[in-house]
Amino acid sequence: MNELTLDRVYQAAHVLKPVINKTELVHATRIDAGCDLYLKAENLQNTGSFKIRGAYYKISTLTDEEKAKGVVACSAGNHAQGVALAAQRAGIKSTIFLPAIAPISKVEATKSYGAEIRLIDGVYDDAYAASVEYQKESGAVFIHPFNDVDVIAGQGTIGMEICDQLADADAVVVPVGGGGLISGVSFVVKKLNPNCKVYGVQAAGAASMVGALKSKKVEALSEVHTFADGISVKCPGDVTYDMVSKYVDEVVTVTDDETAAAILTLMEKQKVVSEGAGAVSVAAVLFNKIPVKDKKVVCVVSGGNIDVNILSRVINRGLIKTGRKATLTIELLDKPGQLEEVSHIVASMGANVTKVDHNTISMDTDINGCYLTLQMETRNFEHIEAIRNKFVEEGFKLV
Amino acid sequence: MNELTLDRVYQAAHVLKPVINKTELVHATRIDAGCDLYLKAENLQNTGSFKIRGAYYKISTLTDEEKAKGVVACSAGNHAQGVALAAQRAGIKSTIFLPAIAPISKVEATKSYGAEIRLIDGVYDDAYAASVEYQKESGAVFIHPFNDVDVIAGQGTIGMEICDQLADADAVVVPVGGGGLISGVSFVVKKLNPNCKVYGVQAAGAASMVGALKSKKVEALSEVHTFADGISVKCPGDVTYDMVSKYVDEVVTVTDDETAAAILTLMEKQKVVSEGAGAVSVAAVLFNKIPVKDKKVVCVVSGGNIDVNILSRVINRGLIKTGRKATLTIELLDKPGQLEEVSHIVASMGANVTKVDHNTISMDTDINGCYLTLQMETRNFEHIEAIRNKFVEEGFKLV
Repeated sequence: MNELTLDRVYQAAHVLKPVINKTELVHATRIDAGCDLYLKAENLQNTGSFKIRGAYYKISTLTDEEKAKGVVACSAGNHAQGVALAAQRAGIKSTIFLPAIAPISKVEATKSYGAEIRLIDGVYDDAYAASVEYQKESGAVFIHPFNDVDVIAGQGTIGMEICDQLADADAVVVPVGGGGLISGVSFVVKKLNPNCKVYGVQAAGAASMVGALKSKKVEALSEVHTFADGISVKCPGDVTYDMVSKYVDEVVTVTDDETAAAILTLMEKQKVVSEGAGAVSVAAVLFNKIPVKDKKVVCVVSGGNIDVNILSRVINRGLIKTGRKATLTIELLDKPGQLEEVSHIVASMGANVTKVDHNTISMDTDINGCYLTLQMETRNFEHIEAIRNKFVEEGFKLV
Repeated sequence: MNELTLDRVYQAAHVLKPVINKTELVHATRIDAGCDLYLKAENLQNTGSFKIRGAYYKISTLTDEEKAKGVVACSAGNHAQGVALAAQRAGIKSTIFLPAIAPISKVEATKSYGAEIRLIDGVYDDAYAASVEYQKESGAVFIHPFNDVDVIAGQGTIGMEICDQLADADAVVVPVGGGGLISGVSFVVKKLNPNCKVYGVQAAGAASMVGALKSKKVEALSEVHTFADGISVKCPGDVTYDMVSKYVDEVVTVTDDETAAAILTLMEKQKVVSEGAGAVSVAAVLFNKIPVKDKKVVCVVSGGNIDVNILSRVINRGLIKTGRKATLTIELLDKPGQLEEVSHIVASMGANVTKVDHNTISMDTDINGCYLTLQMETRNFEHIEAIRNKFVEEGFKLV
């Protein structure tokens, strides 16, 4: 019973019907991606990510005796919320271990789905060790986030829905962390629509599956670095590695900046919020990492649970990168009327000042001079250039 | 032919079928609003707002001769994009007048739907005057944003979809600017489901319909002030005023801060982006402006076209309001080692510093002292309090 079959995924789809949304396949006509782009919007799924699918199906396969002992998981993110809600819907107990440094928003969300929360001092590995200890003592069933055929069958239901919603897709693009999602999706897509390509996407700073495919063995990365925490996984599973080797055409990487740009595009053009892990698929298409020009492409947007602190930074980065926010440093003579003149120029150019720093202490300026740094909302790069030119015209020195 | 009938709305629904999405009615289970909350997600509509409905239906009623002359509209926002795409789909020419100060993103979006753009120096009123002038010269048909029975019939299709998607709704809550949307929705809802309440919501800084209902006549406000630009309307129409008087139970107002909180809630909990005008309905429910406790409530989220500069500010405001961003000013003695000690305390408390200002010039400090202002990402108000206490414990003076 440890091999994935279409039957098993159909079974999962049936079991999942009352607890999940069949999420929309959004035709993203407003995103200029050079292909006919569709989004499988699992960010709009219950709990804000696809993880409920695998977790709930896994729990449904447990015996009554196992269910009585409850389930345990270790996660600071989407898997925690997926397991918590799945257990709640199945009417069983869940205990979720999280590192104490986890964002309060994720802890609160997990708690709201009825899980018992154990905050463990230290990092993820410490929380994981504590959860294994607890599992041994309690006899609760450990729900693995990806390296489990039942969990993979649950995630595979997304592949089934895609084949149903767009029977003639040319390519499906899937975020990859541990590989559970892409294992299920690629298996189903290749069975039902063998001509369809399946591409995986990892964050460049956590490219463990890419490394495994290259070296042909599963090895843990010594460290990972990406803001896409949902796919920040040091080591893929052996089950998922085998399936990805077999069913996936290629796994590529994107940088965090590319992912940030994709998040901003999804917000501005399609009005949906995605997290880093959810947007890497769209980033891969936008930045031409995969050969899908003019094709019919489905990007799985796997989740939307992004901390708003991070989101705020992503937007700021995006604004700067598109010329809609600019910083200008002007050298002033320290005499009356200069600030007024500067303000007048900025206003006449239609920019909006959001922050001013006035600095008289610097080694580089004349002792009577100072630097004025302006942060402005601007229209685009041409607009910024016009403002800079105007200052130079009026006799100011820009730094 | 100038009275609204259900027939006319059915006709509009039929005409609109190939150009609009029947937007989802999202069951917003993750928003704790004290009622059973549903969202009619017109922010996910083509062009990012409901305006395409009225504009396209209006255009469909024109004669071939009228169509040959094209259409004209004046708007810096959703109506512009709605008219532009509607005209494009109908295969006719559109000319859109915008004030030159309109955000570049909205100008670009309107242009991308094939409209001819006329940027007019000055404010909205100047653009409007120019559009009227153009209309006279060209003979193009002027598409009014709200005070037109055909436009209202188009917006009414939203009421029809709501009645279809949730036949037993107790209340429908609708944003109100000029009143076109609520006229159509309330008419249909009261015909099909007479027991269902219909509430309107305006921005407190642009409460023209509230004023008209109170004084029982349509008068223009001398000024409006709200970041919800989509409902920032000085004067409702006579047609819409009559319909709102007849079919709407009550029109209430929300503050811009309440609207900002609603936008943040929609992003964090439901993963969708809404604009100010789109979120006022949800704000009215969240802040108990209407009597819907424990009821089945549909909030129309009418649009999602928010400028990301504004969105970034909304998020920042929300972060501060929920204790997730904090600013702390510490009085330091100007001696070596103080900054290190401060940094150590902040790190040990698990906060994340995003900005530091070091200010030695102030009338209030000792001549050897200075102020250090820290901007930090924090977990919640308790966390901020704990950090403040820690500094005091360690002998620092907070300002």
